[in-house]
Amino acid sequence: MTLDEKLAQLVGFWVDHGGEVVAPLAGEMPTSRALDESTVHGIGHLTRVYGTRPVDPVERARWLWDRQRVLRTQTRLGIPALVHEEILTGLAAWKAATFPTPLAWGAAFDPGLVQEVGAAIGGSMRELGIHQGLAPVLDVIRDPRWGRVDECIGEDPYLVGMIGTAYVRGVQSAGVDATVKHFLGYSGSQSGRNHAPVHAGPREVADVFLVPFEMAIRDGGAASVMNSYSEIDGIPVAASPEVLGDLLHDRLGFDGVVVSDYFSVRFLELMHAVAEDAGAAAAIALEAGIDVELPTGDTYLEPLAERIRSGATDIAFVDRAVLRVLAQKERLGLLDDDFSTPPESVELDSPRHRELARRLAEESIVLLRNDGVLPLARDSVRRVAVIGPNADRPEALMGCYSFVNHVLAHHPGVEAGFDIPSVLDALRAALPGTQVVHSVGCDVEGDDRSGFAAAAEEARDADVAIIVLGDQAGLFGRGTVGEGNDVESLDLPGVQRELVEAVVATGTPVVAVFLTGRPYAIEWAVSGDAAPGAAFQSFFPGEEGGAALAALIVGDAVPSGRLPVSLPRSAGAQPYSYLHPVLGGPTEVTSVDARPVLPFGHGLSYTTFTHSGLAAEEIAPTSGEIRASVVVRNTGSRAATDVVQLYGRDPVASVTRPVAQLLAFERVELEPGQEAVVRFTVPTARLAFSDARLQRIVEPGSIELWVGPNCEERETESSVVLVGDVHRVTPLDPRISTVEVVRG
Amino acid sequence: MTLDEKLAQLVGFWVDHGGEVVAPLAGEMPTSRALDESTVHGIGHLTRVYGTRPVDPVERARWLWDRQRVLRTQTRLGIPALVHEEILTGLAAWKAATFPTPLAWGAAFDPGLVQEVGAAIGGSMRELGIHQGLAPVLDVIRDPRWGRVDECIGEDPYLVGMIGTAYVRGVQSAGVDATVKHFLGYSGSQSGRNHAPVHAGPREVADVFLVPFEMAIRDGGAASVMNSYSEIDGIPVAASPEVLGDLLHDRLGFDGVVVSDYFSVRFLELMHAVAEDAGAAAAIALEAGIDVELPTGDTYLEPLAERIRSGATDIAFVDRAVLRVLAQKERLGLLDDDFSTPPESVELDSPRHRELARRLAEESIVLLRNDGVLPLARDSVRRVAVIGPNADRPEALMGCYSFVNHVLAHHPGVEAGFDIPSVLDALRAALPGTQVVHSVGCDVEGDDRSGFAAAAEEARDADVAIIVLGDQAGLFGRGTVGEGNDVESLDLPGVQRELVEAVVATGTPVVAVFLTGRPYAIEWAVSGDAAPGAAFQSFFPGEEGGAALAALIVGDAVPSGRLPVSLPRSAGAQPYSYLHPVLGGPTEVTSVDARPVLPFGHGLSYTTFTHSGLAAEEIAPTSGEIRASVVVRNTGSRAATDVVQLYGRDPVASVTRPVAQLLAFERVELEPGQEAVVRFTVPTARLAFSDARLQRIVEPGSIELWVGPNCEERETESSVVLVGDVHRVTPLDPRISTVEVVRG
Repeated sequence: MTLDEKLAQLVGFWVDHGGEVVAPLAGEMPTSRALDESTVHGIGHLTRVYGTRPVDPVERARWLWDRQRVLRTQTRLGIPALVHEEILTGLAAWKAATFPTPLAWGAAFDPGLVQEVGAAIGGSMRELGIHQGLAPVLDVIRDPRWGRVDECIGEDPYLVGMIGTAYVRGVQSAGVDATVKHFLGYSGSQSGRNHAPVHAGPREVADVFLVPFEMAIRDGGAASVMNSYSEIDGIPVAASPEVLGDLLHDRLGFDGVVVSDYFSVRFLELMHAVAEDAGAAAAIALEAGIDVELPTGDTYLEPLAERIRSGATDIAFVDRAVLRVLAQKERLGLLDDDFSTPPESVELDSPRHRELARRLAEESIVLLRNDGVLPLARDSVRRVAVIGPNADRPEALMGCYSFVNHVLAHHPGVEAGFDIPSVLDALRAALPGTQVVHSVGCDVEGDDRSGFAAAAEEARDADVAIIVLGDQAGLFGRGTVGEGNDVESLDLPGVQRELVEAVVATGTPVVAVFLTGRPYAIEWAVSGDAAPGAAFQSFFPGEEGGAALAALIVGDAVPSGRLPVSLPRSAGAQPYSYLHPVLGGPTEVTSVDARPVLPFGHGLSYTTFTHSGLAAEEIAPTSGEIRASVVVRNTGSRAATDVVQLYGRDPVASVTRPVAQLLAFERVELEPGQEAVVRFTVPTARLAFSDARLQRIVEPGSIELWVGPNCEERETESSVVLVGDVHRVTPLDPRISTVEVVRG
Repeated sequence: MTLDEKLAQLVGFWVDHGGEVVAPLAGEMPTSRALDESTVHGIGHLTRVYGTRPVDPVERARWLWDRQRVLRTQTRLGIPALVHEEILTGLAAWKAATFPTPLAWGAAFDPGLVQEVGAAIGGSMRELGIHQGLAPVLDVIRDPRWGRVDECIGEDPYLVGMIGTAYVRGVQSAGVDATVKHFLGYSGSQSGRNHAPVHAGPREVADVFLVPFEMAIRDGGAASVMNSYSEIDGIPVAASPEVLGDLLHDRLGFDGVVVSDYFSVRFLELMHAVAEDAGAAAAIALEAGIDVELPTGDTYLEPLAERIRSGATDIAFVDRAVLRVLAQKERLGLLDDDFSTPPESVELDSPRHRELARRLAEESIVLLRNDGVLPLARDSVRRVAVIGPNADRPEALMGCYSFVNHVLAHHPGVEAGFDIPSVLDALRAALPGTQVVHSVGCDVEGDDRSGFAAAAEEARDADVAIIVLGDQAGLFGRGTVGEGNDVESLDLPGVQRELVEAVVATGTPVVAVFLTGRPYAIEWAVSGDAAPGAAFQSFFPGEEGGAALAALIVGDAVPSGRLPVSLPRSAGAQPYSYLHPVLGGPTEVTSVDARPVLPFGHGLSYTTFTHSGLAAEEIAPTSGEIRASVVVRNTGSRAATDVVQLYGRDPVASVTRPVAQLLAFERVELEPGQEAVVRFTVPTARLAFSDARLQRIVEPGSIELWVGPNCEERETESSVVLVGDVHRVTPLDPRISTVEVVRG
């Protein structure tokens, strides 16, 4: 391979991006001159072929197959391009299904279902000739001020790892690659400001941020990794051989391709100021371990070529990256494909997609509070007022990387191309004999209160008022949450809280539904005299979210979501994580009570569950497994699903350890009065940490165990003594707890 | 020495603490049975002999001399006790002078004056037989939510180092020891919550937190160090041989005694949970490098003795600590003293003390804003309304470790014992021909607005209203700032902002004076239509603070303080430091503008200054010095003092570097129309940082330089190119910039 041919394999070309492309017309083909010129030596990736503009998938597929044939037949080496696309909440292609946002996956505590969703998305990718999806996001939430929290799965590394690994397995089961990101530490950015420095030492990096990546790579076989934009303790990740080499390749055994987050190589010059020019940025990133520059070859083409030719950068680094890319293309079958048969039709929002979307939405919605108003008694509700800025907006159901909010927001008038019933639509359908009236009340943002009076009047005349509030997802200043939409206040945006107060003041029973991308400081909505009677937290639930909410509201389904992130007290109390040592929580030495309004793991049902008789085998070897069992019983009158949560704490260790840590969880469906024994097998490596010398160990000693309705409440307790020597954890140690449910 | 004799040297005994001591009576002697029992083998320290209760200093000195003679003559080894006391804002003894709080020292940018203050405090210590003072606090401010911010000097490590080193030199010039604290990282505690975990990597630790300690130890010769309570990345400092050994002794060359912050050894068991019992806590701390346990021997007596006897802990660690303690006692002359002549009288608040307190207060007060209302024209002001909760409260002038707020707050009715004119008192004295009326308006805390109307009425009838607002310093829940008084909001406490708004609404010109211990989010007071005409920020200015403020208000003195910390935007924008890399500030990738309301270094005068013609020698060796000069000119009509601030930036480095960094500063007094050439010599080590391998280096390349009225405004710019090899900084490299002023 010539140098040009090698470098071409290390960059992307962004079809549709910039240039003269203006109209968002279905079927319009990107003019190919720039593409021809850019692929004369071949090309590594085609960037966002389907996800940049609303292009008809089948027409675009035909074009893509043509282009691949050109690469196959009209370049010297005949290597097709790897096609990558966003798959954060579904395939980012026009008319493709939009699933719940990842934070909702966390709330569902259901890796199996997420794996099915991943498989469905992978199948759509495969149909359209897309080889690599840029998800899942495995960043562990550390600060809800960050705008990208809706892209994350949760606050607990194990939960993130379990769900993320399931998604990887699902996607990759279709024969395409997932991309775990953002490696590493991105969510720790200072004050939740996007790209801001991460202040973390190597222990926090290894024991918190690294854990989900280890699981997704070692257990899920994740094929590709994308770097974090940010720095850790002064070293940008894109410039760090310690992070991309030592941690990723050596420690995690990753042997796939590292792609750069968009523009992040150039940002070494422009934002981090650790490179004096584009060529230096390229060299630093390449040597650190960024194999492919995305979205395009800003620095890996001519600037890098110049350094190679001058001898400033060793060609061996180029070769390393090229070999990784070619190995990926070979593994994916690109080198064997003749691209002769583009799809003639595709079904990107099939009944199967919708069923998965519905199930995941339903499982993900968290009932925060209920004074008895829920579920609505269909018989006795003659008139329902549906109020609020998010009640009748399909886009309010979608995350920031959904096609609707990411792409169509720039193409007003273009339809989504598939059905997205709003909460209002769904409630009308669910309550056919009931009069359902609607009033917006106010917008998500802004201070216009002129709609309050009408909303209050509708509420006054109704038997119940359902207020649907929250966020509008978007990017970089458009919307209230999403990439770049960080905040310094965790108050609900705009005047929405006042709208709730105005409606509650009417005396009509109120159900508040928070459709958001981050947890807000909504203590006012979950306790106190002025709180609505019931409140749901729904992290963007996707295309079937309206229907799922309606089903829960009328009692056709029973809530089973649990908070995958603490419901915060205030922005000024951040950062906070439930995984804190003693001194990270409330103590006598500080006047600030940082405890969240509702803890990690909280979520109510229409029935009640008890957990009792937690019993653990008294001892376990430090290199072994902890076995414990608990009895969960449905003590109410509805069949429902509980999320049984096993927590642990190492009360004395050689470094500070969290006061609570999720060790295992399981969704358990129970009939009224039914009970089940839930048997946990927890590998001791779940309790491992980095010791004073940063070796990952399990120490002997007692471990407290408990099961309860959230991370704070110890409904039933036990303990186990780990015996034997200090165990040095190896890559072969199991990481994943297993759970067996035996129903009575 | 027996084991008991050795261990006795490693602990303190807290005279007056707990037990049956109730009445705060001058001259009451602590009953001595417990003391006798506790000192049968000798004793390392006597803890807070003067600073626990209001005891008459001369009577207490007589008692102390007696006790020392007992130790000298009635213990086997005859070793007197080392007596330590708080000296945060002056000697914490009844009737002793109270100086401005350390944050005000930072605002004065005057190391020479702080050294004089230190010498005065050291002199008082010496007179009273106190050997060691527990100050200065060298924690670099990282988050204004922390309650101990008023004990810190500033946000810039170099400023902290310069001022802190001067204080050490001053105190120690009297033949007593200073204690630099809190080693290390305490101010980085998560969310500004006291004792909470510090999330920082080794680079931030070395390049930010360590710098002032290096200066105070290497350049100031600080004799003692106190540890930080908190953990860094999972390892409590009190348990860290890396921090207390490698960094402190090996890297900084410290050879003195490390004393524990009060109770922090036991906290390894009780708060950090890294020790299973008191004996383990003792062993961990001792081995890590805590030589003396304060305030008392909770763990270093019997629990440690048991471990030594059982062989679990090596006696060599005890011996190491004992040798350090004995060397300190020998150096301080304790072993040669016969304690025969206690002082017959002491003057702890002499005219010299008061003059120093006055000068430092005057230099420290920062004029944030002035629309022309200041200085008051004595002739035209017939009636002044002095309003606000801090207008007539002497304790509002004092920091949290002042005797008044720390001790006398628990002894209602006991007088301070020295003169502390309030702002109101001082204004009445400064405006003899003017009618000065007073109205409180509201309290510091609480929501009582009942005094608003009266305050507004007083203002309406006056030519000018002076509103004195802010904090009440205290500890652990008493007061609004101080140790343990952390916050999750940076709004001014209580309803004080509303009081200002009510007074401003009268139309009478308003001067707001913020007497606080932390910077608050007071954008409303410095810009906008509803802002008062002028605003002062005064970090607790001490016993002469009222007089200093009055002098500034009436124009007998001219403001010259500068913000030693950013004036924050909001609690939700924290943490923030002006020393941020590009991505720590506002960027296009985040919707949050974290920039402070007013930047580090800001402060107005009654005259105007220009800075021009910054010229630097074009090149400097990486191992050398940067030489630059600037012309500062008083372009107004008042003689006044400018703080000339030289900043620099390394625009491309191998790690991310701050967008601005204070390199040198100097107070320059100028007559109207006068100019001066200020010549800076900046050692290149001021630009050093920890590279990828954590070696401290100076890299070749261009450095931007500028002088301006604060860290953000580049009034005159230059640059220098550092040439030569990468320079590895050694302990012998100079750290301190020198400045020469040549007046025109």
